[in-house]
Amino acid sequence: MTRLHVPVSLRWSDLDAYQHVNNVEMFRLLEDARITAFWQHPDAGEDAWPTAVIENGPGASSHTFVARQEIEYLRPLAFTRTPVRVEMWIGKIGGASLEVCYEVHDGAARFDRVGPSTGGEPYARAATTIVVVDAATERPRRITPTERAAWEPFVEEPISFRRR
Amino acid sequence: MTRLHVPVSLRWSDLDAYQHVNNVEMFRLLEDARITAFWQHPDAGEDAWPTAVIENGPGASSHTFVARQEIEYLRPLAFTRTPVRVEMWIGKIGGASLEVCYEVHDGAARFDRVGPSTGGEPYARAATTIVVVDAATERPRRITPTERAAWEPFVEEPISFRRR
Amino acid sequence: MTRLHVPVSLRWSDLDAYQHVNNVEMFRLLEDARITAFWQHPDAGEDAWPTAVIENGPGASSHTFVARQEIEYLRPLAFTRTPVRVEMWIGKIGGASLEVCYEVHDGAARFDRVGPSTGGEPYARAATTIVVVDAATERPRRITPTERAAWEPFVEEPISFRRR
Amino acid sequence: MTRLHVPVSLRWSDLDAYQHVNNVEMFRLLEDARITAFWQHPDAGEDAWPTAVIENGPGASSHTFVARQEIEYLRPLAFTRTPVRVEMWIGKIGGASLEVCYEVHDGAARFDRVGPSTGGEPYARAATTIVVVDAATERPRRITPTERAAWEPFVEEPISFRRR
Repeated sequence: MTRLHVPVSLRWSDLDAYQHVNNVEMFRLLEDARITAFWQHPDAGEDAWPTAVIENGPGASSHTFVARQEIEYLRPLAFTRTPVRVEMWIGKIGGASLEVCYEVHDGAARFDRVGPSTGGEPYARAATTIVVVDAATERPRRITPTERAAWEPFVEEPISFRRR
Repeated sequence: MTRLHVPVSLRWSDLDAYQHVNNVEMFRLLEDARITAFWQHPDAGEDAWPTAVIENGPGASSHTFVARQEIEYLRPLAFTRTPVRVEMWIGKIGGASLEVCYEVHDGAARFDRVGPSTGGEPYARAATTIVVVDAATERPRRITPTERAAWEPFVEEPISFRRR
Repeated sequence: MTRLHVPVSLRWSDLDAYQHVNNVEMFRLLEDARITAFWQHPDAGEDAWPTAVIENGPGASSHTFVARQEIEYLRPLAFTRTPVRVEMWIGKIGGASLEVCYEVHDGAARFDRVGPSTGGEPYARAATTIVVVDAATERPRRITPTERAAWEPFVEEPISFRRR
Repeated sequence: MTRLHVPVSLRWSDLDAYQHVNNVEMFRLLEDARITAFWQHPDAGEDAWPTAVIENGPGASSHTFVARQEIEYLRPLAFTRTPVRVEMWIGKIGGASLEVCYEVHDGAARFDRVGPSTGGEPYARAATTIVVVDAATERPRRITPTERAAWEPFVEEPISFRRR
């Protein structure tokens, strides 16, 4: 039950005319958390996330495509300068795909990157299925042993969506 | 099996660095289609959509909140100046909520607003659960007989998502 | 004094928490107008804009880069389903660059693509300097005679910004 | 010559199909820097920026409106997880308005919030004229002595744009 805890800064433009983070922008926050935690960032150095093993950027040999997404919005998120905390884990690792699960919680000035679920009702809970694709052929490619080893510590039950 | 066929113009900025419409932006297109077809637009006149009965805007007595969303991406959507055609129908009308279903298809210079499903594989299929909320209390309020009458002609089977 | 009159559809998400089109999103509308009127759109057929001679998209031999922008906001723009009308003209054609000028006005259900200035106070007036770049070298390249011939009918005095 | 040095996190979605931060999104980064440094953030505590004296949010007695903006793009900005550093200063304080000046530079894991110009060619330089508005009347209101005192230490020559 070890999760990634990813800080994501809101932008004021994430608000819509109802003065809450827009439902579409919530997916933008999740995209940002996912890219932070799963992509290799060449400038990360010792600061790299343990799960950041997907090569990316111009010239990368792999891409990732989003195959499906699902979200439940539980309460509205107002603007704050304190980054929100996106708790992430992996609901399932398939042959060429990965289900990333998320809960969006209040953040703090500082928090640990890896740790247990903090409980409490999140603003939203969501899941994204990612397919890893060979950049040359644009076809799915198998998840590598290195990727699998980096991700397995974060496998946990997928989300049971309440409102289906 | 009568659907709404809503034209939505792409923006070049909907593309991401992979040069396809970004997965998050796809929800933006759906939001745009939904607002076109379901919101009252005071300047619409005789051009009003048959389903456009939700009051909105500053001073409206109701709001709508998005409670959940689900999407499957079936193939990448490239930039085009021809508006895409979002086929919409209603998967379910509840007491205070509404499930809007969508398929995103190629558009054309001109197409009818109401008609049967056109078949063919869409770029994406999705569903959104909308809750109608009293603006004063911010609590769900019952769908009115007028709203129900406007929407019932468009009720059809909800989407069976393949990749759940 | 012949201008391009480009319809641009608002999206509800162009509004910010003040319930008007956000100042940054105004540039997004201008980008959309510019791409509509200046880029070649392979699917345009007889419907092509007279100025649409810049090749673009994956594999194009040229790119365009934005070198500078300036805008004055004159009054707030509220949400409407009637596309706004972006009046565009060319303030200057240089060796490898182009100054595009804009005024954002109310639209109408239908309006002509080319015509005189309509007068009246716009929501905003703006100018963008575009540099045409060789895609292979990423260096500016000379504007071609074809491009120049397509653009010269739309050359007019550049904007005198009031608030500098 | 003391400037504010504001960290702003990029989002991958700031990139456009050319794989650089989009010209419009650059204004989004500037908006974010401005809101960080000039708005009161109730949760900031001792961490408040010295210039953060503009009341905002629902119920605030003032709003700010953007009256004009100008930008020069000097070199393309690629995606990085290291927040960029937006150097900000004030080019002019008027009766009811404020000219905010910016340079966008590379960031670092950590940097001081207040300090001298770091020199070097920025990615972009820009200026925004902000008008402070009474929320009740929507008319400009005078800058208060408190605001003026907070801002005067950061007044410096406005930008001389090269490409006008």
